[in-house]
Amino acid sequence: MSPIKDIFDNTEIKKKPEGFAPHRQKIHEIIFEAETTAGRLFDVMLLIMIFSSIIVLMLETVPRYYAAHKHIFYVLEWVYTIFFTIEYLLRIYCVYRPAYYIKSFFGVIDLLSILPSYLTIFIPGMHSLMIVRGLRLLRVFRIFKLDSFTEQGNIILSAIIESRKKLAIFAVTIIIMVTIFGSIMYLIERNVNPNFDSIPRCIYWAIVTITTVGYGDISPITSFGQFIASIIMLMGYIIIAVPTGIVTSSIMREDKNSMNTITCPNCTKEGHDKDAKYCDRCGNSL
Amino acid sequence: MSPIKDIFDNTEIKKKPEGFAPHRQKIHEIIFEAETTAGRLFDVMLLIMIFSSIIVLMLETVPRYYAAHKHIFYVLEWVYTIFFTIEYLLRIYCVYRPAYYIKSFFGVIDLLSILPSYLTIFIPGMHSLMIVRGLRLLRVFRIFKLDSFTEQGNIILSAIIESRKKLAIFAVTIIIMVTIFGSIMYLIERNVNPNFDSIPRCIYWAIVTITTVGYGDISPITSFGQFIASIIMLMGYIIIAVPTGIVTSSIMREDKNSMNTITCPNCTKEGHDKDAKYCDRCGNSL
Amino acid sequence: MSPIKDIFDNTEIKKKPEGFAPHRQKIHEIIFEAETTAGRLFDVMLLIMIFSSIIVLMLETVPRYYAAHKHIFYVLEWVYTIFFTIEYLLRIYCVYRPAYYIKSFFGVIDLLSILPSYLTIFIPGMHSLMIVRGLRLLRVFRIFKLDSFTEQGNIILSAIIESRKKLAIFAVTIIIMVTIFGSIMYLIERNVNPNFDSIPRCIYWAIVTITTVGYGDISPITSFGQFIASIIMLMGYIIIAVPTGIVTSSIMREDKNSMNTITCPNCTKEGHDKDAKYCDRCGNSL
Amino acid sequence: MSPIKDIFDNTEIKKKPEGFAPHRQKIHEIIFEAETTAGRLFDVMLLIMIFSSIIVLMLETVPRYYAAHKHIFYVLEWVYTIFFTIEYLLRIYCVYRPAYYIKSFFGVIDLLSILPSYLTIFIPGMHSLMIVRGLRLLRVFRIFKLDSFTEQGNIILSAIIESRKKLAIFAVTIIIMVTIFGSIMYLIERNVNPNFDSIPRCIYWAIVTITTVGYGDISPITSFGQFIASIIMLMGYIIIAVPTGIVTSSIMREDKNSMNTITCPNCTKEGHDKDAKYCDRCGNSL
Repeated sequence: MSPIKDIFDNTEIKKKPEGFAPHRQKIHEIIFEAETTAGRLFDVMLLIMIFSSIIVLMLETVPRYYAAHKHIFYVLEWVYTIFFTIEYLLRIYCVYRPAYYIKSFFGVIDLLSILPSYLTIFIPGMHSLMIVRGLRLLRVFRIFKLDSFTEQGNIILSAIIESRKKLAIFAVTIIIMVTIFGSIMYLIERNVNPNFDSIPRCIYWAIVTITTVGYGDISPITSFGQFIASIIMLMGYIIIAVPTGIVTSSIMREDKNSMNTITCPNCTKEGHDKDAKYCDRCGNSL
Repeated sequence: MSPIKDIFDNTEIKKKPEGFAPHRQKIHEIIFEAETTAGRLFDVMLLIMIFSSIIVLMLETVPRYYAAHKHIFYVLEWVYTIFFTIEYLLRIYCVYRPAYYIKSFFGVIDLLSILPSYLTIFIPGMHSLMIVRGLRLLRVFRIFKLDSFTEQGNIILSAIIESRKKLAIFAVTIIIMVTIFGSIMYLIERNVNPNFDSIPRCIYWAIVTITTVGYGDISPITSFGQFIASIIMLMGYIIIAVPTGIVTSSIMREDKNSMNTITCPNCTKEGHDKDAKYCDRCGNSL
Repeated sequence: MSPIKDIFDNTEIKKKPEGFAPHRQKIHEIIFEAETTAGRLFDVMLLIMIFSSIIVLMLETVPRYYAAHKHIFYVLEWVYTIFFTIEYLLRIYCVYRPAYYIKSFFGVIDLLSILPSYLTIFIPGMHSLMIVRGLRLLRVFRIFKLDSFTEQGNIILSAIIESRKKLAIFAVTIIIMVTIFGSIMYLIERNVNPNFDSIPRCIYWAIVTITTVGYGDISPITSFGQFIASIIMLMGYIIIAVPTGIVTSSIMREDKNSMNTITCPNCTKEGHDKDAKYCDRCGNSL
Repeated sequence: MSPIKDIFDNTEIKKKPEGFAPHRQKIHEIIFEAETTAGRLFDVMLLIMIFSSIIVLMLETVPRYYAAHKHIFYVLEWVYTIFFTIEYLLRIYCVYRPAYYIKSFFGVIDLLSILPSYLTIFIPGMHSLMIVRGLRLLRVFRIFKLDSFTEQGNIILSAIIESRKKLAIFAVTIIIMVTIFGSIMYLIERNVNPNFDSIPRCIYWAIVTITTVGYGDISPITSFGQFIASIIMLMGYIIIAVPTGIVTSSIMREDKNSMNTITCPNCTKEGHDKDAKYCDRCGNSL
C-alpha cells in the first residue's frame, strides 16, 4: 500500500536491538533521525555535500572549467569520496540491522555513489558513473514534514502502479505504430531525402514526431511525405490524450481514497484530510 | 462490449468439432493454447522469431550493414519466410474452423506477413511491406496473464470508441482551423519567405505548429508572421486540452464501470476489482 | 443550452409559412432536408463540390502546378463560383425565411465563399480569401446521424463556454509570463545572440518555448540563457496541465449532465444515454 | 481560502476611517472603485496607459524603431513615468490606510513599475526592468464582473496550491531524471558530437527533450544515442501525463467544492452555482 514509506521509513529497521552500545545509539540518532538539533544539522549538511558534489561533477565535464581548474577538481572529488565513504561506514556501524540497510534502496545508492571513484583508479571510464549520486538527492524529502510528502508521493506512485497494465498496452501500441509509420515514411522519402535512409532512423523520426518533440534534424521534404507526416502528427495529437486519461483517472481514484469521504454537513465541502475532525472551510464538526 | 477479447480469444473458433483427428488436436494445443509446457514454449519461440525477423528487416535497410552482410540478410529472410509459412499452414491444418481463422484479424496478419517475401520474386518493390510483421507482435499479450491485460485493453479501446464522435468533431474542427491558419500565413509570408510558397505547405506548417511538434524546417520570419504564429501556438496550447478532456472523461467512466461500485464499509476505500470479496486495504468483507 | 443546434438545425427557420409555392417547397426539400434520396444526393454532391473546390484552390498556390495548368485553374474557379452562386440564390429563393437565412451562420459563410471570386475582378489580392470556403465543410455533420453528432459537439462547446472565464484568466497569466520571461532572456542573451535582439522577438521565443512547439529558429546559446530556458521549459511542462485540467473538469461535468444518472440495478453500470430504457451491458430494465 | 480575493479586494483596506476628508474621499471613489462613471473611466484609461506603455517599451528594444524614433521613445517614457508617479502618489494620498496599500501586492507592483525609470538616471542598465509594468495588467480583471472572475481564478490557484506537494515531488523526480539521462547521453555522444560536450549541456538537452520542446539545436547523431533518446522521449510522453493528472484531479475537486451539490430533483442536472435557486436547465426549484 505504501511503496515510498518502505523506502524512506521502514519500521523493521527501526526496532532497536537489546544491548545496543550507547555511543552507537548516539551516532544512530544523529544520522538516522531528524528530531534532535544535531540530527537535523547532519541532514542539512549531508544534502549540501550531495548537492555540491553533483555540481562539481558536472562542472568538471565542461572543457573550459576542467582545463583551468584540473587540480581543484581532483582534490574536491576525493574530499567528497572520503566524506561519503566515512558516512557510509558510520551508517553500517550504527544502524540496528546492517545487513538490512546494505540491501535497502538507499543502502545500495549510498554504495554506488562512492564505488565509481575507487574504480577510476583501475578503470578510467568509470568516472562519469558518479552521477548516480543524483539519486541521493531523494533524501531531500526526509527533512521537511516527511509524512505529508510521502503520503502525496504514495498517491502518485500508487496511481502509476495501478495503471501499469494500461500504460504497458499503450506503450506496445505506440511502438508498433511508430514501426509502421517509420516504414511507410522510409518507402516514401528514401529516394530523395538522405535523412530517411534506413528504417531504424525513420522509426527514430516517427518517435520524435509522435511524441511532439520535433527536433527538425530529420523532416520530410516531399509533398506526399509531408502529407503523411501531417496525418501522423494529428494522430499523435489525439493519442497523447490516452496516457493522460489513464494516469488522471488513477490519480483521481487514489486522491479520493486518500481522503476522508465525509461531506461537511454544514457547507457540503468534500475532500477533507483523512484525520480531519472539523471542516476547514466552515469549522463545523465532521 | 469486449472488442479485444474477440480478436484474441474468440469463443466461436474454440468449439472443438466432433471427429477431430487426435494428431491435429495435439498440434492445436501446442499452437493455440498456452496451458501446456509445449504450448508455452511454442508461444515464446514464435515471439522471438517475430521480433528477430523485424530487427533483421530493419537492419537490412541500413546501407552500411546491407553492404557488409548482403548474403546473410538474404538467407535469413528466407529462413523466416519459410518458418512463418509452415506455421501458417499448420495453423490452418489444426484449427477447428479454418475458414474462420483465415478471415480473422490474426489470420489476415499472418498471411500478410509472409506474402511480400514471395511477391518480391516477381515485383522488387514489395520487399518493405514485410514490416507488417510488426502487427504480429500484438500476440505478446497472449502469453502473460491474458485476461487481466485484455480487460485493461478493453477499457482503453471502449473509451476511444465511446468518444469517437467527439474526437471526429474535434478532428474536423482542427482540419478546418489549420486550413484557415495556413492560408492566413500564406498571405503574410509568401513574398519574403520561400518556405511559405504554397497553401498546402503552409497547412503543413500549421499542423506542425498546432500539434506542438515544431520541427523548425518552416518557420515565420516576418514580425507580423511571428505575431500570428504566436496566437496560433497559444490557441493550440489550449486546444490540446480538448482531446485530453474527451478521452480522460471516457476512460474514467469505463474505469468506474469495470470496477466494483461497493465502498468498503470499514475504511471507505472505493475502486475494488469486479470480483473482489474483501477490501484490499483493511481486509474487511465487502 | 445547445449552441450547435442553433447553427445547424434552427427550428425558427423550419416553420413553413402558409401559401408557400409547391415548386419552391420541392427545391426546399432537396436543399435543406436529407430525408429524401434527392436531398441526400444533393448534400453528398455539394460536399464533393466544396471539398474539391478547396483542393483546387490549394493546388493553385503551388507554383509548379500553377505554371503548368494556369488556364485549367482559371476555368475551374469560375465553374465553382457559378455553381456556388446558383446554390446560394436557390437557397434564398426556397428558404422559408430568406432574411433569417442570410443572417444565419451558414448564410454568411455561403456568401463569403463566393464573394472573393467576384472581388478579384476588381481587386487582385482578394483571391486567397476564397479559402473561407473551408468553413462550408462544417456541413459534413449534417448528412450522417445529425442529432447524435450535434449532441456530442454541444458537450464540447458547452464545456469550453463553461470554462471560458478560467481559460481567459489562464491566457492573461500566460501572456504576462511570456512577457516577463522574454524580457529576462533579452537581458541575458542580447549581447551575444543576434536572434535575441528585441523584446518582441524574445517574447515570440518564450511563446514558442512555453507551448512546447520549439522550432529551434531562435534558441539560447549562453550557459546562463540555457539554464533560464530550462526553468521556463519545466514551468511550461507543469503549466500545460492547467488548461487540460480546466477543460477536462468541464467536459466530465457536461458528459455527466448529458447522461442518464440511473445506475443499472443489476450490474451497477453507470453512464447510460439520456433515453436509454435498458442497460446496454446486461439488458436489465432501468 | 481566497488568495486572489485578498489581492484584488481586501476588505481591511476598505473600511473608511472617521474624519476622512471629502475631497480625498472623492479621489478615492474615482481611483479605487468602478461603480461610478468617473471611476470606470479612470480604470479604462489606466489600462490603456499601462498597455500602451508596455508596447512602447517593447518597440524601443527593436533596433530599427529605436534608431528612427530615439527622441519620441525618450519623451514617451517620461510621460508614462510621470503619469504613473502621479497616480501612485494619488493612491497613497486617498487610500484609507496608506501603509497597508504600500505593502500590498499591487502597491509594490505600482512602485516597481516607476522606480526603474528614475534609477536609469544613475544606473543605465536598469532600463529593461520597466517590463515589470506587465504585472500591472492583472488589474484588467477588476473592471469586468470582478467577483465571478476572481472566483474562477481562486479555483485555479487553490487547485495549484492544493497539489503543490505532489508537483514538488514530481519536479524533483524530473530534475533527477534529466540529470541521469543527460549523463548517459554525455557518455554515449561526447566523442562524436561536439554539441554533447559537457554534462550541463546534456542536461539542457534532456530537459528540451523530456518537455517535448525539441529545439533541435542539440540532437543525437549516433545510432545508439538516437535509440536512448527515443526511450527518453517515450518516457517523457507518459511522464507528461503525471502533472496533468495531478492538476486535473485538484481542479475537479475545487470545481465541485465551489458548486452547489444539490442535484436537480426534476432533470438530475448537477453542478449548479453556489447561489442558484432554480435549475438552469429545467427551471425546477432546487
